[in-house]
This record gives sequence, structure tokens and C-alpha cells, in this order.
Amino acid sequence: MTTETRITVRYAETDQMGITHHSVYPIWFEAARTDWIKQLGLTYSQLEKMGVMTPLSQLECRYTGVSRYEDELTVCCFVTELSAARIRFGYEVLRQGEEKPICTGSTLHGWVDSQTFRPVNMKKRFPDLYAQIETQLEPGQKA
Amino acid sequence: MTTETRITVRYAETDQMGITHHSVYPIWFEAARTDWIKQLGLTYSQLEKMGVMTPLSQLECRYTGVSRYEDELTVCCFVTELSAARIRFGYEVLRQGEEKPICTGSTLHGWVDSQTFRPVNMKKRFPDLYAQIETQLEPGQKA
Amino acid sequence: MTTETRITVRYAETDQMGITHHSVYPIWFEAARTDWIKQLGLTYSQLEKMGVMTPLSQLECRYTGVSRYEDELTVCCFVTELSAARIRFGYEVLRQGEEKPICTGSTLHGWVDSQTFRPVNMKKRFPDLYAQIETQLEPGQKA
Amino acid sequence: MTTETRITVRYAETDQMGITHHSVYPIWFEAARTDWIKQLGLTYSQLEKMGVMTPLSQLECRYTGVSRYEDELTVCCFVTELSAARIRFGYEVLRQGEEKPICTGSTLHGWVDSQTFRPVNMKKRFPDLYAQIETQLEPGQKA
Repeated sequence: MTTETRITVRYAETDQMGITHHSVYPIWFEAARTDWIKQLGLTYSQLEKMGVMTPLSQLECRYTGVSRYEDELTVCCFVTELSAARIRFGYEVLRQGEEKPICTGSTLHGWVDSQTFRPVNMKKRFPDLYAQIETQLEPGQKA
Repeated sequence: MTTETRITVRYAETDQMGITHHSVYPIWFEAARTDWIKQLGLTYSQLEKMGVMTPLSQLECRYTGVSRYEDELTVCCFVTELSAARIRFGYEVLRQGEEKPICTGSTLHGWVDSQTFRPVNMKKRFPDLYAQIETQLEPGQKA
Repeated sequence: MTTETRITVRYAETDQMGITHHSVYPIWFEAARTDWIKQLGLTYSQLEKMGVMTPLSQLECRYTGVSRYEDELTVCCFVTELSAARIRFGYEVLRQGEEKPICTGSTLHGWVDSQTFRPVNMKKRFPDLYAQIETQLEPGQKA
Repeated sequence: MTTETRITVRYAETDQMGITHHSVYPIWFEAARTDWIKQLGLTYSQLEKMGVMTPLSQLECRYTGVSRYEDELTVCCFVTELSAARIRFGYEVLRQGEEKPICTGSTLHGWVDSQTFRPVNMKKRFPDLYAQIETQLEPGQKA
């Protein structure tokens, strides 16, 4: 499952180089991740209420192009790795109508208890949800 | 009591006009407010732990100049209004060595219970802290 | 003319109070302003290329409610004041399906030359565009 | 040469998890990079005026801890890689008084002409500056 999130670059997101500041892409990744989870049939807010948070442990971005104010972009989001302890999402940011992404990236998240901030074994705690995410893994990816 | 907070403009805070984006000044106001409260001898974090939050009900900014990447600024912060229900802070942002501010502003905050988000009578709940803030009001301001 | 811009609150836009940080609303106002100008039939990017910028001289926000992560909001934008030297926009932020705004605000902008940053007499420099904006003023507002 | 930049976590930088949002660390990296360049005896603003920009091509962060509102942090910055075409900076974010970083990262930048956005051969165009940076490389790193 790959979701597509539409983004229009905001003025505040540009910097004095006249392009989107690089720190904005991780925020778009997060908006895309929100949509990915919503596609599963629950919201990330519900997940937090269920007692699970997914703080980042790694972030990677490759910037291969630029975007500018008012550009209309699509952020593709998919899951590339899943285990009882962690989940990794991948991202591609494309200018609409183009095939070559202007930015690609990934984020690695731990499954964490929202009260204690301690690791949660997601496979045991929420086996159904875990199984559902597993079916959405990109082909060829490791569960 | 007026506090002075030093700010160096970050690259990410600029926009494609080549100046600091206007939405950044309220964030600097907040950093200045943090320092003002710290001058009282407690931290805002402690205040939140005491059960009090101060969400904004009003924000006003007047932009009379611009700032740019790497500019070194001073944000002056003072209290202009105090009641059992609310507190208003005033701000002036100056480029170092200049007398005319590039931005002035104010924020109005309700005293709110951090669990219920309901109004707190600050004068009754924390009379000593309230009295202490009262002595720090700018001369000629209303308590 | 009033435009309506859809916003979904991003995780990064929340703060430790669990609500959208107040400095984010001016950024949404700007996204709404972008849409308002687009409704005129040109983009703000084109306006900048025509040699005109509209830096803020004033910002006002009244926060009458809160918004939270994943909330779906509508930002209404309209022009409340227009002169050869300045333009003022008004805003209302509503949670979808509600009538009472959670935030209202206004921004005042000077018409400025994008090279020199000096005031531009908009009525003389772009009479057609000025007349077009004039027809979009809210009834009862001053031109 | 390793520079140390002092950061106090701003309220606006926290999210509803109660910790600093992960997208803020790259902004602190940038503030640290600004200080690193300043230590060379020029400012990044001067570098841009000399006709050189350094847009990011890669960003990597490892989050090994968390920071919270009002935490006082140190961001260490150093150069780990240098060539005529690119420069890589490394970062460590530490809570003051602690030895184990809460975040480490790196950014890779191209040397780019500020007018054309095309690659610049830094070794040829500014041989003295290039040589000066070369002497500041961390021991054991590749030039």
C-alpha cells in the first residue's frame, strides 16, 4: 500500500535561497505517514489513545531537486520494514506530473508505550493490527 | 522588570523575501517570556507542574523593520497587565546597538488549569506568586 | 469574495500542551491568503515577478478555541481594507462542521517594490489589478 | 575544529509527545554550521555574497534520546568530508553535563553558484578558503 498526500508549498516553508527549507520535508513525511495510517482504518490519534507512540529513531533524506512556493507536490508513503519492535516508512516527494522525485527519504520508528516511553512488543500487544500492517508491506521487504 | 533575550536569526527562519518570516517573532516572544518567568525564580516548566498553563488568547505584532539571517537581536519582555484571570506581556525586538525596535508586540494569556484547561483564579490559588508578579509590573500599568 | 482553505493539523504543529501552537495560525493565514490571490486569477508568485511584495506590517490573532493533531479545519480569508499603499486581510479558522471560529485574525500589508523594498502606489502602478481587488472588498469595508 | 553551539529548547519546538519534534534537530544543526563557518573567520552570509551556496543533498539523524522544553543543549559541529564538489558536516547534540549524545547526524552539501545553482569547483574558485577548511578536517577524515 502506497498513499499519496497532496502538499502545496507554503511561503513560510521557503528560505532565503528561494526554495523549500530542507527541514520541512520531514514534516511532510509525517503528514504522509498520518495518511498512510488513516488508510489502515484507524488514525494515529487513536493509536496514541491505544497506548502506543512511534517516536523516530532514524531519519534519512536525499535531496535530488528543489521545490518552491506554491509548487504542488505529492508525497508517496509506504512501509519498507516491520518487526515487533520497529517500523520503517519510505517516502518520495514528486512535483505533480513529474516522475523523478525531488526528495526521497525514510524514517525508522520504535513502538513505544505512550505512558512509560518504553518499547512495546507490537506483535504481542496488538496482533491484529500488526498482521494488518504486515499485509501492507511493499513486496520484497522484510517483516 | 524587563528581561533581555539574545537571538541570532537562523537560516530556517528566513523566507524567500530574504528576511525573517513574520511567524517567527511570536516564537521569539515565547523564548523571551520563558526568560522573564525564569527571572522570577521559577521556570515555566515548574509552573506547568504546579498545575497552571498560560495559553494565548490574543497576539499582536507590529513590524516596523526587518531582520535577516545571522542578525543578532535582543528581545525585551515585560508584563503590562495582570489580573486573577489573565496576564499580558509586551515585547520589543531590537537589532543590537539600535534604539528603534524592528518589531513590537503583546500576548494575552489566561491562567488555566493544566488538567482541565479551565480558568484558574491565580490570585487565590497562588497568592505569593501572584503578589511577586504584581511587583514586577511596568510602572503605570494596571494590576 | 471569501475563500476557504482546507487544513489538516500536522503533528509537528502541536506543542506539549497537546494543541496547535499559536505561531502556526499566521502560517495558515498565509496559505489562505495565497488561495485568495489565486482566486483573483493570478498567483502571489506572479505578483512577486511583477515586482510587488506584500510584507506584513501588522498581525492580530484572537484565540477562542483550540485545535488538535489531525483536526480538519477551514480557514476563511477576505479583504477588509484596501488603499494605494496597503491591504488588510481578515481570517476565520473553523473546525469543519462548526460555526464558531476557534481563531480569528487580520494582517496588514504594505505594497512594496520587490527590488527596493520601498512603498509602491498600487493604484497607479497596477490600476487594473487594484480595481479588481476593490470589487472583492467585503461590503461595508473601506477602500 | 569542533564548535559548540548553545541551544535552549523553545516551547514551540515541542510536540504533543512532550518532547522536541524531530524536525527541529536539522534546524539546530544549521545553527551549529553557521557557528562553524564563523569560526573560520567569515560568515555564511559573506559566503553567499561571494557567490557560493551550500544546499543540502543528504541529511541523516539518529535519535538516541529526547530533549524537552527549557533543556539546555550543546550542538557540536565538525567537518568529516571535503572535496572540490562537496562538504559533509557531522553533529552531536548533548544535554549539558552529559557525555552521551541525544542525537547525532550529518549533512552533505554541494558547493553551488548562488546565481545559477550549478556546481562550483570550490578548490579552483576559492583555493585559499578551501585550503583553510581542509586544515580543519577531523583527523582520519578524507579530504
